[in-house]
Amino acid sequence: MNFNEKLRLTCIDKNNRLCIGLDVDNNSLKNNSLDYMNSYIKDIIISTIDICPVYKINFSFYERYGSKGYKILEQIPEYVNSKSILIADAKRGDIGNSSKFYAESIFNYLGYDSVTVSPFMGSDSIEPFINYKEKGVFVLALTSNPGSNDFQKKLINNKELYKYVIKMCNKLNKYKNVGLVIGATNDDELDEVDSASNSMPWLMPGIGFQGGNLEKSLIVGEKNYLSLVNVSRGILNFKDRRISDIRESALNYTNKIREIL
Amino acid sequence: MNFNEKLRLTCIDKNNRLCIGLDVDNNSLKNNSLDYMNSYIKDIIISTIDICPVYKINFSFYERYGSKGYKILEQIPEYVNSKSILIADAKRGDIGNSSKFYAESIFNYLGYDSVTVSPFMGSDSIEPFINYKEKGVFVLALTSNPGSNDFQKKLINNKELYKYVIKMCNKLNKYKNVGLVIGATNDDELDEVDSASNSMPWLMPGIGFQGGNLEKSLIVGEKNYLSLVNVSRGILNFKDRRISDIRESALNYTNKIREIL
Repeated sequence: MNFNEKLRLTCIDKNNRLCIGLDVDNNSLKNNSLDYMNSYIKDIIISTIDICPVYKINFSFYERYGSKGYKILEQIPEYVNSKSILIADAKRGDIGNSSKFYAESIFNYLGYDSVTVSPFMGSDSIEPFINYKEKGVFVLALTSNPGSNDFQKKLINNKELYKYVIKMCNKLNKYKNVGLVIGATNDDELDEVDSASNSMPWLMPGIGFQGGNLEKSLIVGEKNYLSLVNVSRGILNFKDRRISDIRESALNYTNKIREIL
Repeated sequence: MNFNEKLRLTCIDKNNRLCIGLDVDNNSLKNNSLDYMNSYIKDIIISTIDICPVYKINFSFYERYGSKGYKILEQIPEYVNSKSILIADAKRGDIGNSSKFYAESIFNYLGYDSVTVSPFMGSDSIEPFINYKEKGVFVLALTSNPGSNDFQKKLINNKELYKYVIKMCNKLNKYKNVGLVIGATNDDELDEVDSASNSMPWLMPGIGFQGGNLEKSLIVGEKNYLSLVNVSRGILNFKDRRISDIRESALNYTNKIREIL
């Protein structure tokens, strides 16, 4: 089974499209030791994995502790234990030889199911990731931050740059393992993204704290193929940040998502 | 003293513009243990630091060993011991909060002097790095790989995308700590890069194995502000890859550079 289909079936199986972003800032925890952060992440996963089909791990929150942070990154796949899909949100991308090693790091060494990559260096910087046919590659196309105006929305022959990125992704998707990162804050562009994207899963950050549109993101993304709505701070910072609070918030989002679907 | 000036003085002091790319592939070494890789890198640095003003560490070659690779990344600044400038070639870039943590990782935790970043997500994804005023930020503008044609050379109002990136960098360079990554394989574009770039250091990969033009890269980059010509495989794979071979190759490049300057 190809990656995109596996992802879709996991979402259908859990009747959910929620992606919990495990952006745990340990400075906001009662105990800010890395051991506590590690066990807290494990507890979040255990308490939500029955309803959550996808977890996204933002590598910056771990790399800030160097090799010690990487040790946590190495353990997360064990906690998930193949019961959900894991996205390494690392936004990598380099010339072929280096991208090959980044792919080796994330897919082989760490054992994540998928990765986010930047398209700036072109298709040869993305292919080494895609060549892991069982693994998934989410390419940044139209991001959720204000800076998405700087280049992504610039017009090339009357067509925005991000549409050229999507066109490249359509072409790269021969193994059905390519998806797009589409910020949920881009309400106005979602229908055009749908027109440009040939049946690909969309990873949609920007729900919750950043104010993205949950309903529209789900409806348009599902029409295309599959919409994964990522919530990080909106879940992790709920109430007192106890595991039961996080479970409650994940359930709230799950219920909203199920209603819309 | 600002970063760009510090970089320039280090280059002038060593009468060199060579940046050795420490892309050590331990599978090509006699002994492929990580301990050996670590001591090999230390020996390369010790044997070349009198002539080499800048080392570039491609993170993919280390991340492929997860936390164990990161342990080596953590030790490299000790080996260099502030006698040369260290570039973390990590090509990071994310929304503001995450870029802040990537900057914290590379500048604070690991202690590197500078970093390479991708501009795809726009200026707010780069600013958190630049806000470390003493540290340097090399922004990908026109890379050395074939994929640089996919987006970087696309025309927006008759001007290539990479020139918009350079324009953004001119603006972001208020602390004089911004540089550009310009592939030395782009002979034909170097004069136009010079016209667009307001006195910034250029990090120029693509010399040696990739066939970039050493002479033109040096002359045009120096005219702008400073040219750092990066050689990785061309030095690391010289003869039998002994430390003395690497020293010899670094000296050969140094002599060529001094002749051109």
